Amino acid sequence: MIKKLTEEIRKKEAPIVVGLDPMMKYIPEFIQKEAFKEKGEGLEAAAEAIWIYNKGIVDAVYDLVPAVKPQIAMYEQFGIPGLMAFKRTVDYCKEKGLIVIGDIKRGDIGSTSEAYATGHLGRALVGSKRIAGFDEDFVTVNPYLGSDGVKPFIDVCKEEDKGIFVLVKTSNKSSGEFQDRLIDGKSPLYELVARKVDEWGQELMEGDYSNVGAVVGATYPEVGKALRDIMPRSFILVPGYGAQGGSGKDLKYFFNKDGLGAIINSSRGIIAAYMKEEYKNFGEKNFGDAARAAVLDMKEDINANI
Amino acid sequence: MIKKLTEEIRKKEAPIVVGLDPMMKYIPEFIQKEAFKEKGEGLEAAAEAIWIYNKGIVDAVYDLVPAVKPQIAMYEQFGIPGLMAFKRTVDYCKEKGLIVIGDIKRGDIGSTSEAYATGHLGRALVGSKRIAGFDEDFVTVNPYLGSDGVKPFIDVCKEEDKGIFVLVKTSNKSSGEFQDRLIDGKSPLYELVARKVDEWGQELMEGDYSNVGAVVGATYPEVGKALRDIMPRSFILVPGYGAQGGSGKDLKYFFNKDGLGAIINSSRGIIAAYMKEEYKNFGEKNFGDAARAAVLDMKEDINANI
Repeated sequence: MIKKLTEEIRKKEAPIVVGLDPMMKYIPEFIQKEAFKEKGEGLEAAAEAIWIYNKGIVDAVYDLVPAVKPQIAMYEQFGIPGLMAFKRTVDYCKEKGLIVIGDIKRGDIGSTSEAYATGHLGRALVGSKRIAGFDEDFVTVNPYLGSDGVKPFIDVCKEEDKGIFVLVKTSNKSSGEFQDRLIDGKSPLYELVARKVDEWGQELMEGDYSNVGAVVGATYPEVGKALRDIMPRSFILVPGYGAQGGSGKDLKYFFNKDGLGAIINSSRGIIAAYMKEEYKNFGEKNFGDAARAAVLDMKEDINANI
Repeated sequence: MIKKLTEEIRKKEAPIVVGLDPMMKYIPEFIQKEAFKEKGEGLEAAAEAIWIYNKGIVDAVYDLVPAVKPQIAMYEQFGIPGLMAFKRTVDYCKEKGLIVIGDIKRGDIGSTSEAYATGHLGRALVGSKRIAGFDEDFVTVNPYLGSDGVKPFIDVCKEEDKGIFVLVKTSNKSSGEFQDRLIDGKSPLYELVARKVDEWGQELMEGDYSNVGAVVGATYPEVGKALRDIMPRSFILVPGYGAQGGSGKDLKYFFNKDGLGAIINSSRGIIAAYMKEEYKNFGEKNFGDAARAAVLDMKEDINANI
């Protein structure tokens, strides 16, 4: 799957992933009103509004970017109807030729991680059949439980040609609380995790890169530089661009010399572009066009810095 | 919520939680066959089989134990129908007076953790209404992202009188890979996390205990002893009893002198008791009675060691 991602990045000249994190406050009021009118003020209406909003964004940007990253929490908060909107979004994006990175940050012990991997990347055995639950192309994985929490994901990736991005250094302010602590007085925990990512990745090489990638926040460029060297074969999924404070010039360290090896996520900056001063002239109704303009600007900013 | 849990533990004299982890291989064949006959070999049949199985277990043990812990991965692997079975199980257990600990191990950055907390413990704002998605009583939380990933859960717990158990030292073999590493050459990472749990918990005291608890595996009793002292006000949710190798005598260290402060989980050992040599005479059809016998034996084993 990493080969397909690389090809799509090259073809579209955009190492960019659009984060589909449809918080209610970003969804244009006319969409919400219509959904409430049709379905009443319930979880189904929230799910419908999310779906209409996502479809508008995806239709406006699918030819520009290789991938999308729906953040499952934003759907899960609306219970079953929300998760149905998640699945519908995943399916629709795949129909449009997009690679889907499920931002699920799951991680558990052996058989339980296996169940998560099965549900999101593989196919569950039901009687004599194997059936996919959510069927994303990549998912994000939390490493806190160690190798036997991550390995089941790798096994499913092998069978199904899929991939994972393991959390190494996250973009949030307090990420250093545990991730930055010096292990044995030497290197920070995130480096230890990065070395494991590199090790796990050797099992899952496809061309120059591995199907085991890492998440490293754009908000810590100097860390990105160090981690780039530790995991030369891993793609780095980089959140925190734009709204969280990371900018194009901070990103050069995340790429390899071949101009590859990183994919930069922007969520709010794209899907809620219509709310920003810069793109306000598009108007609420044209939130999709505003998103498209924001992707084009982001593409320029990033390509100028690789 | 921790007060309610404490009261129920006292009333039922059972610091025990039954893990509802319905792997297909544990579900009696007659239930699976019936579900396939009714629904065909699809995700809906898997979900139906899970539900019938869970109901059988819950009906057989609900008067003996204070709480259940459904492991969401085992449902999520069957996609939307699986998650519908999860919700149905949560709702049914609450109807039966059981406290529900959603074993979801979620954790993300600020607004995303907030969405998870809302979906599982709180109520999502939809138009002018607030509606619960899954509505468990407690959930498990992964601390890798630091305080700003955990705080949103605490905020929701405050509003809704709910609680969390933060992963500190997990029961699996490779849990030491990161969790045991010495920070600054001094104490292991899990101790650092435990100190944070104690700190976070101060905000959420209810009687002698806090609504911020911890997960510490029964498979590491000597670690349990150290962590009991670091987090005197936190309940410890202890997985790994029985099938994973922990036994009653290993558990005394997890309790405080008041005989409280820990709740021991058993999943396979109870829900699949009918498959074990000891309880085989019950027969597959009476899997609920076998589960009940296993709970009674577990209760005796644990109460003898507190």
